Amino acid sequence: MIRNTVERRIGALLKGTGQTLSAAESCTGGRISHLITTVSGSSAYYLGSVTSYAVKIKEKVLSVPSETISSNGVVSSEVACAMAEGVRALFGSTYSVATTGLAEGGDEHYPEGTVWIAVSGPLGTESTIYQSGKGVRKDNIRQFTCVALQFLEKYIQKSQSIDNQAK
Amino acid sequence: MIRNTVERRIGALLKGTGQTLSAAESCTGGRISHLITTVSGSSAYYLGSVTSYAVKIKEKVLSVPSETISSNGVVSSEVACAMAEGVRALFGSTYSVATTGLAEGGDEHYPEGTVWIAVSGPLGTESTIYQSGKGVRKDNIRQFTCVALQFLEKYIQKSQSIDNQAK
Repeated sequence: MIRNTVERRIGALLKGTGQTLSAAESCTGGRISHLITTVSGSSAYYLGSVTSYAVKIKEKVLSVPSETISSNGVVSSEVACAMAEGVRALFGSTYSVATTGLAEGGDEHYPEGTVWIAVSGPLGTESTIYQSGKGVRKDNIRQFTCVALQFLEKYIQKSQSIDNQAK
Repeated sequence: MIRNTVERRIGALLKGTGQTLSAAESCTGGRISHLITTVSGSSAYYLGSVTSYAVKIKEKVLSVPSETISSNGVVSSEVACAMAEGVRALFGSTYSVATTGLAEGGDEHYPEGTVWIAVSGPLGTESTIYQSGKGVRKDNIRQFTCVALQFLEKYIQKSQSIDNQAK
């Protein structure tokens, strides 16, 4: 039996619609992109991702303004939203998802286990915060990825539902 | 006991050297980036990656010339090398690794389970082909990632060894 994972459900929502997806990852480090591409046929809707681990890559490749980072901190709703909007514009996708957080080691603003997640698409850009609490690095990455994919799934469902009502 | 994985060994080679790493992934879909970032302290040397799942992203974001793709096919040494050089130039890293292949479904040029891997750095750009044979999509992705990281490890060892001899 094939498990009905969130990445499969996202695939089922997008397949055959002509809608596309991209991702911008910081603390999840590529795991979102990895899970999406484990789904057979994902190349029909998945364009790709940028893992912007270094701050300068967020600015240079994803066009996150340096003032957005310096004013709000790199783990913030504002930076997550700018990353989602940046990768969506760069890749020209219908939807995008972005993460920025701390899988290990807290800072002065946020404790370890904090992630800001943003999703961008036809309904605009939305963000949410998730806190796993102190944990093992790999477990935090897994939890962050799962929560981000669930947030994306809900956004796509809402967007497609509004599209269908308009028809 | 912590397992001495290839991603940990790469981390041990790079940590404290000031040397940096980036990745460009097609068929591995983000798994290389994911494994590298599971290593504690990887932000000291890992700048990030581009998953260029769509052909147009290879051209637009990684600057792979469209003629390189049309002349050689997307699964080729030439495209793998251009992806590695493209992401290294974009991210400004010391080293880069790139993959392009078929985790599932063959084409007229290559059977399923074929991947071209390239590494770029101070010694220039090198490529290798690996064929897993027909298999499950996820298993192929795992094998491709493992072979790519081992190819990268050997390149870094060789490059650092030449650096040390020159001192």
